[in-house]
Amino acid sequence: MELLKQRILQEGKALSEEILKVDSFLNHQIDPVLMMDIGEEFKRRFAGQEITKVLTVEASGIAVALMTGLALKVPVVFAKKKKASTISGNVYVGTVYSYTRQESYDIVVQDTYLKPEDKVMIIDDFLATGEASQGMVSLVEQSGAQLVGVGIVIEKVFQCGGQQLRDKGIWVESLVQVKSMQKGHIEFV
Amino acid sequence: MELLKQRILQEGKALSEEILKVDSFLNHQIDPVLMMDIGEEFKRRFAGQEITKVLTVEASGIAVALMTGLALKVPVVFAKKKKASTISGNVYVGTVYSYTRQESYDIVVQDTYLKPEDKVMIIDDFLATGEASQGMVSLVEQSGAQLVGVGIVIEKVFQCGGQQLRDKGIWVESLVQVKSMQKGHIEFV
Repeated sequence: MELLKQRILQEGKALSEEILKVDSFLNHQIDPVLMMDIGEEFKRRFAGQEITKVLTVEASGIAVALMTGLALKVPVVFAKKKKASTISGNVYVGTVYSYTRQESYDIVVQDTYLKPEDKVMIIDDFLATGEASQGMVSLVEQSGAQLVGVGIVIEKVFQCGGQQLRDKGIWVESLVQVKSMQKGHIEFV
Repeated sequence: MELLKQRILQEGKALSEEILKVDSFLNHQIDPVLMMDIGEEFKRRFAGQEITKVLTVEASGIAVALMTGLALKVPVVFAKKKKASTISGNVYVGTVYSYTRQESYDIVVQDTYLKPEDKVMIIDDFLATGEASQGMVSLVEQSGAQLVGVGIVIEKVFQCGGQQLRDKGIWVESLVQVKSMQKGHIEFV
Protein backbone atom coordinates (compact mmCIF):
# COMPACT_ATOMS: atom_id res chain seq x y z
CA MET A 1 0.00 0.00 0.00
CA GLU A 2 1.98 2.91 -1.39
CA LEU A 3 0.21 5.66 0.59
CA LEU A 4 1.08 3.90 3.83
CA LYS A 5 4.74 3.43 2.86
CA GLN A 6 4.99 7.15 2.20
CA ARG A 7 3.51 7.99 5.61
CA ILE A 8 5.94 5.58 7.30
CA LEU A 9 8.92 7.12 5.49
CA GLN A 10 7.72 10.67 6.22
CA GLU A 11 6.63 10.28 9.84
CA GLY A 12 7.84 6.90 11.12
CA LYS A 13 10.89 6.71 13.32
CA ALA A 14 13.15 3.66 13.50
CA LEU A 15 14.26 3.92 17.12
CA SER A 16 16.43 0.79 16.86
CA GLU A 17 16.76 -2.31 14.69
CA GLU A 18 13.48 -3.55 16.16
CA ILE A 19 11.30 -0.62 17.25
CA LEU A 20 9.36 1.39 14.66
CA LYS A 21 7.43 4.33 16.05
CA VAL A 22 4.38 5.43 14.05
CA ASP A 23 2.71 7.37 16.83
CA SER A 24 1.72 10.30 14.63
CA PHE A 25 -0.90 8.44 12.57
CA LEU A 26 -1.41 4.88 13.86
CA ASN A 27 -1.02 4.19 17.55
CA HIS A 28 -1.13 7.30 19.69
CA GLN A 29 -2.41 9.96 17.32
CA ILE A 30 -4.62 8.39 14.64
CA ASP A 31 -5.43 9.66 11.15
CA PRO A 32 -9.09 8.62 10.66
CA VAL A 33 -9.05 9.12 6.88
CA LEU A 34 -5.96 6.91 6.49
CA MET A 35 -7.66 4.32 8.72
CA MET A 36 -10.67 4.36 6.38
CA ASP A 37 -8.40 3.79 3.37
CA ILE A 38 -6.76 0.89 5.23
CA GLY A 39 -10.17 -0.63 6.03
CA GLU A 40 -11.16 -0.44 2.36
CA GLU A 41 -7.84 -2.06 1.35
CA PHE A 42 -8.45 -5.01 3.71
CA LYS A 43 -11.94 -5.36 2.25
CA ARG A 44 -10.41 -5.60 -1.25
CA ARG A 45 -7.77 -8.11 -0.20
CA PHE A 46 -10.28 -10.42 1.48
CA ALA A 47 -13.03 -9.87 -1.12
CA GLY A 48 -15.64 -12.60 -1.50
CA GLN A 49 -14.90 -14.25 1.85
CA GLU A 50 -18.26 -13.56 3.54
CA ILE A 51 -16.59 -12.41 6.75
CA THR A 52 -19.03 -12.06 9.67
CA LYS A 53 -16.73 -10.67 12.40
CA VAL A 54 -13.54 -8.67 12.70
CA LEU A 55 -11.43 -9.54 15.74
CA THR A 56 -8.63 -7.43 17.23
CA VAL A 57 -7.05 -6.78 20.60
CA GLU A 58 -7.10 -3.53 22.57
CA ALA A 59 -5.91 -0.85 22.25
CA SER A 60 -4.02 0.08 19.09
CA GLY A 61 -5.76 -2.54 16.91
CA ILE A 62 -9.20 -1.01 17.50
CA ALA A 63 -8.98 1.88 15.01
CA VAL A 64 -7.91 -0.29 12.08
CA ALA A 65 -10.35 -3.07 12.97
CA LEU A 66 -13.24 -0.61 13.31
CA MET A 67 -12.68 0.82 9.85
CA THR A 68 -12.37 -2.67 8.39
CA GLY A 69 -15.65 -3.60 10.08
CA LEU A 70 -17.24 -0.44 8.66
CA ALA A 71 -16.05 -1.32 5.14
CA LEU A 72 -17.37 -4.88 5.50
CA LYS A 73 -20.51 -3.83 7.47
CA VAL A 74 -19.86 -6.44 10.18
CA PRO A 75 -19.34 -6.15 13.95
CA VAL A 76 -15.89 -5.70 15.44
CA VAL A 77 -14.86 -7.55 18.59
CA PHE A 78 -11.86 -6.43 20.58
CA ALA A 79 -10.22 -8.86 22.97
CA LYS A 80 -9.56 -7.31 26.38
CA LYS A 81 -6.17 -7.54 27.98
CA LYS A 82 -7.42 -8.84 31.28
CA LYS A 83 -10.67 -10.11 32.67
CA ALA A 84 -12.67 -6.96 33.28
CA SER A 85 -15.09 -6.86 36.18
CA THR A 86 -18.05 -6.35 33.82
CA ILE A 87 -17.28 -9.42 31.71
CA SER A 88 -19.57 -12.16 32.87
CA GLY A 89 -20.37 -15.61 31.60
CA ASN A 90 -17.98 -17.82 29.71
CA VAL A 91 -14.92 -16.41 28.06
CA TYR A 92 -12.17 -17.58 25.72
CA VAL A 93 -8.69 -16.81 27.02
CA GLY A 94 -5.39 -16.60 25.15
CA THR A 95 -1.98 -15.86 26.63
CA VAL A 96 0.34 -13.36 24.96
CA TYR A 97 3.97 -12.61 25.76
CA SER A 98 4.96 -9.01 25.08
CA TYR A 99 8.66 -8.62 24.19
CA THR A 100 8.27 -4.83 24.41
CA ARG A 101 7.01 -4.96 27.99
CA GLN A 102 8.67 -8.29 28.87
CA GLU A 103 5.58 -9.69 30.53
CA SER A 104 2.76 -12.08 29.73
CA TYR A 105 -0.86 -11.08 29.79
CA ASP A 106 -4.18 -12.73 29.00
CA ILE A 107 -6.49 -11.67 26.22
CA VAL A 108 -10.16 -12.41 26.74
CA VAL A 109 -13.29 -12.55 24.59
CA GLN A 110 -16.74 -13.32 25.90
CA ASP A 111 -18.09 -16.42 24.18
CA THR A 112 -21.27 -14.58 23.14
CA TYR A 113 -19.27 -12.65 20.54
CA LEU A 114 -17.48 -15.48 18.71
CA LYS A 115 -19.71 -18.34 17.56
CA PRO A 116 -19.03 -21.57 15.61
CA GLU A 117 -20.95 -20.13 12.64
CA ASP A 118 -18.73 -17.01 12.43
CA LYS A 119 -16.16 -16.40 9.69
CA VAL A 120 -13.52 -14.29 11.39
CA MET A 121 -10.89 -11.90 10.12
CA ILE A 122 -8.15 -10.99 12.62
CA ILE A 123 -6.78 -7.43 12.35
CA ASP A 124 -3.81 -5.85 14.08
CA ASP A 125 -1.61 -2.81 13.62
CA PHE A 126 1.76 -4.63 13.91
CA LEU A 127 3.01 -8.16 13.30
CA ALA A 128 6.44 -8.79 14.76
CA THR A 129 7.04 -12.00 16.71
CA GLY A 130 3.37 -12.82 16.21
CA GLU A 131 2.48 -13.35 19.86
CA ALA A 132 -0.70 -11.23 19.75
CA SER A 133 -1.87 -12.78 16.48
CA GLN A 134 -1.24 -16.30 17.79
CA GLY A 135 -3.25 -15.42 20.89
CA MET A 136 -6.15 -14.26 18.74
CA VAL A 137 -5.91 -17.36 16.52
CA SER A 138 -6.27 -19.39 19.71
CA LEU A 139 -9.43 -17.44 20.66
CA VAL A 140 -10.95 -18.19 17.25
CA GLU A 141 -10.02 -21.90 17.56
CA GLN A 142 -11.59 -22.11 21.02
CA SER A 143 -14.83 -20.66 19.66
CA GLY A 144 -15.08 -23.14 16.81
CA ALA A 145 -15.42 -20.27 14.32
CA GLN A 146 -13.69 -20.33 10.93
CA LEU A 147 -10.56 -18.20 10.63
CA VAL A 148 -10.53 -16.51 7.23
CA GLY A 149 -7.21 -14.75 7.61
CA VAL A 150 -5.07 -12.18 9.37
CA GLY A 151 -4.80 -8.57 8.16
CA ILE A 152 -1.81 -6.58 9.37
CA VAL A 153 -0.94 -2.93 8.78
CA ILE A 154 2.84 -3.22 9.27
CA GLU A 155 4.71 -6.53 9.31
CA LYS A 156 8.31 -6.62 10.49
CA VAL A 157 9.33 -9.66 8.44
CA PHE A 158 12.71 -10.01 10.18
CA GLN A 159 10.90 -10.94 13.41
CA CYS A 160 9.39 -14.08 11.82
CA GLY A 161 5.89 -13.99 13.35
CA GLY A 162 4.32 -13.74 9.89
CA GLN A 163 6.34 -16.71 8.64
CA GLN A 164 5.18 -18.83 11.58
CA LEU A 165 1.53 -18.02 10.85
CA ARG A 166 1.97 -18.77 7.11
CA ASP A 167 3.74 -22.05 7.96
CA LYS A 168 0.56 -23.04 9.80
CA GLY A 169 -1.41 -22.43 6.59
CA ILE A 170 -2.92 -19.15 7.79
CA TRP A 171 -3.65 -16.50 5.16
CA VAL A 172 -1.75 -13.34 6.20
CA GLU A 173 -2.12 -10.04 4.35
CA SER A 174 0.25 -7.27 5.38
CA LEU A 175 -0.23 -3.84 3.85
CA VAL A 176 3.43 -2.96 4.34
CA GLN A 177 6.35 -5.31 5.00
CA VAL A 178 9.46 -3.91 6.65
CA LYS A 179 12.56 -5.89 5.70
CA SER A 180 15.05 -4.25 8.02
CA MET A 181 15.58 -1.19 10.15
CA GLN A 182 18.53 0.72 11.46
CA LYS A 183 18.31 3.79 13.63
CA GLY A 184 16.89 6.45 11.28
CA HIS A 185 16.53 4.10 8.28
CA ILE A 186 13.64 1.86 7.18
CA GLU A 187 13.83 -0.63 4.29
CA PHE A 188 10.70 -2.24 2.83
CA VAL A 189 10.49 -5.68 1.18
CA MET B 1 -30.27 10.22 20.35
CA GLU B 2 -33.27 7.95 19.87
CA LEU B 3 -31.47 5.20 17.94
CA LEU B 4 -28.99 4.81 20.78
CA LYS B 5 -31.72 4.69 23.46
CA GLN B 6 -33.38 1.87 21.54
CA ARG B 7 -30.12 -0.11 21.34
CA ILE B 8 -29.55 0.38 25.07
CA LEU B 9 -33.08 -0.81 25.88
CA GLN B 10 -32.81 -3.79 23.50
CA GLU B 11 -29.28 -4.95 24.29
CA GLY B 12 -28.04 -3.13 27.39
CA LYS B 13 -28.04 -4.88 30.74
CA ALA B 14 -28.38 -3.08 34.05
CA LEU B 15 -26.29 -5.39 36.24
CA SER B 16 -26.87 -3.28 39.35
CA GLU B 17 -27.89 0.26 40.26
CA GLU B 18 -24.54 1.47 38.93
CA ILE B 19 -23.24 -0.89 36.23
CA LEU B 20 -24.68 -0.74 32.71
CA LYS B 21 -23.30 -3.33 30.34
CA VAL B 22 -23.40 -2.41 26.64
CA ASP B 23 -20.82 -4.92 25.49
CA SER B 24 -22.76 -5.99 22.40
CA PHE B 25 -22.35 -2.70 20.48
CA LEU B 26 -20.09 -0.28 22.35
CA ASN B 27 -17.26 -1.64 24.46
CA HIS B 28 -16.41 -5.24 23.69
CA GLN B 29 -18.22 -5.91 20.46
CA ILE B 30 -18.60 -2.68 18.46
CA ASP B 31 -21.18 -1.79 15.81
CA PRO B 32 -19.19 0.30 13.32
CA VAL B 33 -22.27 1.76 11.59
CA LEU B 34 -23.73 2.93 14.91
CA MET B 35 -20.33 4.43 15.77
CA MET B 36 -20.42 6.38 12.50
CA ASP B 37 -23.89 7.71 13.33
CA ILE B 38 -22.61 8.75 16.77
CA GLY B 39 -19.62 10.52 15.20
CA GLU B 40 -21.95 12.47 12.89
CA GLU B 41 -24.17 13.38 15.85
CA PHE B 42 -21.21 14.81 17.79
CA LYS B 43 -20.23 16.79 14.67
CA ARG B 44 -23.75 18.29 14.58
CA ARG B 45 -23.78 19.13 18.29
CA PHE B 46 -20.42 20.90 18.16
CA ALA B 47 -20.99 22.47 14.72
CA GLY B 48 -19.04 25.63 13.89
CA GLN B 49 -16.42 25.13 16.62
CA GLU B 50 -13.37 24.64 14.34
CA ILE B 51 -12.17 21.66 16.36
CA THR B 52 -8.60 20.58 15.46
CA LYS B 53 -8.20 17.46 17.64
CA VAL B 54 -10.34 14.79 19.23
CA LEU B 55 -8.96 13.42 22.51
CA THR B 56 -9.99 10.19 24.21
CA VAL B 57 -8.46 7.53 26.46
CA GLU B 58 -7.79 3.90 25.59
CA ALA B 59 -9.43 1.52 25.04
CA SER B 60 -13.22 1.80 24.79
CA GLY B 61 -13.20 5.51 23.89
CA ILE B 62 -11.21 4.90 20.71
CA ALA B 63 -14.04 3.70 18.46
CA VAL B 64 -16.34 6.65 19.19
CA ALA B 65 -13.48 9.15 19.02
CA LEU B 66 -12.24 7.75 15.71
CA MET B 67 -15.64 8.13 14.06
CA THR B 68 -15.98 11.66 15.45
CA GLY B 69 -12.53 12.47 14.04
CA LEU B 70 -13.60 11.01 10.70
CA ALA B 71 -16.76 13.15 10.65
CA LEU B 72 -14.74 16.28 11.53
CA LYS B 73 -11.73 15.29 9.36
CA VAL B 74 -9.28 15.91 12.24
CA PRO B 75 -6.73 13.67 13.99
CA VAL B 76 -7.69 11.63 17.03
CA VAL B 77 -5.34 11.31 20.01
CA PHE B 78 -5.83 8.58 22.55
CA ALA B 79 -4.23 8.94 25.96
CA LYS B 80 -2.41 5.80 27.05
CA LYS B 81 -3.04 4.26 30.43
CA LYS B 82 0.59 4.05 31.40
CA LYS B 83 3.85 5.32 30.06
CA ALA B 84 4.61 2.96 27.18
CA SER B 85 8.23 2.10 26.42
CA THR B 86 7.95 3.64 22.95
CA ILE B 87 6.71 7.02 24.23
CA SER B 88 9.67 9.36 24.25
CA GLY B 89 10.08 13.07 24.86
CA ASN B 90 7.87 15.14 27.09
CA VAL B 91 4.45 13.95 28.11
CA TYR B 92 1.39 15.30 29.87
CA VAL B 93 0.18 13.07 32.69
CA GLY B 94 -3.21 12.92 34.40
CA THR B 95 -4.22 10.64 37.25
CA VAL B 96 -7.52 8.78 37.14
CA TYR B 97 -9.18 6.75 39.87
CA SER B 98 -11.26 3.84 38.59
CA TYR B 99 -14.15 2.94 40.90
CA THR B 100 -14.80 -0.18 38.80
CA ARG B 101 -11.28 -1.51 39.31
CA GLN B 102 -10.64 0.33 42.60
CA GLU B 103 -7.20 1.55 41.57
CA SER B 104 -5.55 4.69 40.27
CA TYR B 105 -3.72 4.83 36.98
CA ASP B 106 -1.96 7.49 34.93
CA ILE B 107 -3.09 8.63 31.51
CA VAL B 108 -0.39 9.99 29.26
CA VAL B 109 -0.23 12.04 26.06
CA GLN B 110 2.98 12.95 24.30
CA ASP B 111 3.28 16.76 24.11
CA THR B 112 3.78 16.63 20.33
CA TYR B 113 0.09 15.77 19.87
CA LEU B 114 -1.57 18.51 21.94
CA LYS B 115 -0.41 22.06 21.17
CA PRO B 116 -1.42 25.49 22.53
CA GLU B 117 -3.01 26.30 19.15
CA ASP B 118 -5.29 23.22 19.25
CA LYS B 119 -9.05 23.36 19.82
CA VAL B 120 -9.82 20.06 21.51
CA MET B 121 -12.97 17.99 21.87
CA ILE B 122 -12.85 15.26 24.51
CA ILE B 123 -14.81 12.10 23.70
CA ASP B 124 -15.59 9.11 25.90
CA ASP B 125 -18.05 6.23 25.93
CA PHE B 126 -19.26 6.68 29.52
CA LEU B 127 -19.48 9.54 32.00
CA ALA B 128 -20.15 8.39 35.54
CA THR B 129 -18.11 9.91 38.37
CA GLY B 130 -16.16 11.84 35.73
CA GLU B 131 -12.69 10.71 36.77
CA ALA B 132 -11.53 9.88 33.22
CA SER B 133 -12.97 13.11 31.79
CA GLN B 134 -11.36 15.19 34.54
CA GLY B 135 -8.04 13.48 33.76
CA MET B 136 -8.36 14.40 30.10
CA VAL B 137 -9.37 17.98 30.94
CA SER B 138 -6.14 18.15 32.94
CA LEU B 139 -4.13 16.95 29.91
CA VAL B 140 -5.70 19.69 27.76
CA GLU B 141 -4.98 22.33 30.43
CA GLN B 142 -1.34 21.21 30.70
CA SER B 143 -0.94 21.58 26.92
CA GLY B 144 -2.33 25.12 26.82
CA ALA B 145 -4.84 24.06 24.16
CA GLN B 146 -8.42 25.32 24.18
CA LEU B 147 -11.04 22.87 25.42
CA VAL B 148 -14.15 23.13 23.26
CA GLY B 149 -16.23 20.57 25.12
CA VAL B 150 -16.80 17.01 26.19
CA GLY B 151 -18.87 14.54 24.13
CA ILE B 152 -20.20 11.48 25.93
CA VAL B 153 -22.15 8.53 24.58
CA ILE B 154 -23.85 7.50 27.84
CA GLU B 155 -23.99 9.71 30.92
CA LYS B 156 -25.11 8.21 34.21
CA VAL B 157 -26.44 11.44 35.69
CA PHE B 158 -26.94 9.96 39.17
CA GLN B 159 -23.16 9.62 39.52
CA CYS B 160 -22.67 13.40 39.27
CA GLY B 161 -19.51 13.52 37.12
CA GLY B 162 -21.35 15.47 34.43
CA GLN B 163 -22.66 17.98 36.96
CA GLN B 164 -19.15 18.58 38.28
CA LEU B 165 -17.84 19.28 34.77
CA ARG B 166 -20.76 21.62 33.99
CA ASP B 167 -20.23 23.42 37.32
CA LYS B 168 -16.71 24.22 36.09
CA GLY B 169 -18.23 25.85 32.98
CA ILE B 170 -17.35 22.94 30.67
CA TRP B 171 -19.69 22.26 27.74
CA VAL B 172 -20.83 18.63 28.07
CA GLU B 173 -22.95 16.92 25.42
CA SER B 174 -24.29 13.47 26.29
CA LEU B 175 -26.12 11.53 23.61
CA VAL B 176 -28.07 9.57 26.20
CA GLN B 177 -28.61 10.39 29.87
CA VAL B 178 -29.48 7.57 32.23
CA LYS B 179 -31.46 8.81 35.23
CA SER B 180 -31.52 5.62 37.25
CA MET B 181 -31.04 1.89 37.00
CA GLN B 182 -32.23 -1.12 38.86
CA LYS B 183 -31.26 -4.67 38.04
CA GLY B 184 -32.97 -5.30 34.69
CA HIS B 185 -34.44 -1.81 34.38
CA ILE B 186 -33.04 1.39 32.82
CA GLU B 187 -34.70 4.82 33.05
CA PHE B 188 -33.61 7.74 30.86
CA VAL B 189 -33.80 11.45 31.72
